Amino acid sequence: MGSQPLVATIVVIFSTVDGVLQVLLVHRSSQPEQEKWALPGGRWGGSESLDEAASRKLVEETGARGVYLEQLFTTSGLDPSREATVAVAYFALVDAARVRLRREEAWLPKWHRVDELPPLAFDNNLVIEQAVARVGAKLEYTNIAYGLLPEQFTLRELQTTYEAILRQPLDRRNFRKRMLSTGLIAPTAERRHEGAHRPALLYRFTAREPVFL
Amino acid sequence: MGSQPLVATIVVIFSTVDGVLQVLLVHRSSQPEQEKWALPGGRWGGSESLDEAASRKLVEETGARGVYLEQLFTTSGLDPSREATVAVAYFALVDAARVRLRREEAWLPKWHRVDELPPLAFDNNLVIEQAVARVGAKLEYTNIAYGLLPEQFTLRELQTTYEAILRQPLDRRNFRKRMLSTGLIAPTAERRHEGAHRPALLYRFTAREPVFL
Repeated sequence: MGSQPLVATIVVIFSTVDGVLQVLLVHRSSQPEQEKWALPGGRWGGSESLDEAASRKLVEETGARGVYLEQLFTTSGLDPSREATVAVAYFALVDAARVRLRREEAWLPKWHRVDELPPLAFDNNLVIEQAVARVGAKLEYTNIAYGLLPEQFTLRELQTTYEAILRQPLDRRNFRKRMLSTGLIAPTAERRHEGAHRPALLYRFTAREPVFL
Repeated sequence: MGSQPLVATIVVIFSTVDGVLQVLLVHRSSQPEQEKWALPGGRWGGSESLDEAASRKLVEETGARGVYLEQLFTTSGLDPSREATVAVAYFALVDAARVRLRREEAWLPKWHRVDELPPLAFDNNLVIEQAVARVGAKLEYTNIAYGLLPEQFTLRELQTTYEAILRQPLDRRNFRKRMLSTGLIAPTAERRHEGAHRPALLYRFTAREPVFL
């Protein structure tokens, strides 16, 4: 049987910056996979649940509390040169404007564009791909995009966020009709001036906790 | 840090028998949770991937190969009286008619009605609940019910299978229209006599591997 496996939790932390989907990565300053970028994570020791460990990691890295966090899947590493490892992956959606990254030189936490990732440590590119697919599928029938947006936002901002995750342009008219028909968002009484355009009505999510249609 | 956690794979193996959703359980003959029923599973040692371990367990318990198997989620056990444990749960859909249960007195593998389960070992009732919900959601947009049905089946048998998982009656006309419109099933050239009714047309899944609409 040998030694028991190492269990780690890792978190895919998404945000949108300038209409582009980004993921938070840390830089590995030691072996294995030294000098590569990787998803934030840590060894699980059993003193808290897996969900608690992932949530704590998220708060440590971003300061963001009460954001959407979901378990993605669990993978096993079989590298014969190392001990057997199990990685329990989660994903989270955070508003980059409300995030304060840790200032730790050893880790250099930094946002990276999902569409321009270098080869990452371990199988992290694959994990991020799967997370993007999961989030994209969930946009169809949930309100989880609330995690990426401020309290109030324009429909244009909402559409940009959806397009960033789905990585394709959406028809403006259909998008607006669909979003309003779900009841997941509602207009506020406020408008915002943006450049030379007429003021855009601001919307809000009717709930800022997960709702499934 | 203490000792490293124990990692186990467990498999929720579903079948339908007489129109009722069933799950395969084994009887625990030793501590912990002695004399309770539990999901089949085993300790993961790292010599194979988690997916391979779950697949092997499924074949050992049922003899069924090439059936639908999907990772469900991973839970952690925090019982302070035992070592920290992680359970990676999977679910599978098998045709009970093609299953040969192991004849092992120590385990007594046996089908149990999902709607009449006793309190199970560990948090297995919760795991099964989540698996039923996942399968039910997937029936809407996949063909994974193929795992529960023989090569050829009547629309009545298909509806009974769906109703068993969704645990609610479905409108016959809407169900048939919907299933045929998906292209997931197609009529064969054969019919089957059932009692005094006129012979029912037999259908087949157009693919017996996962298809997502």
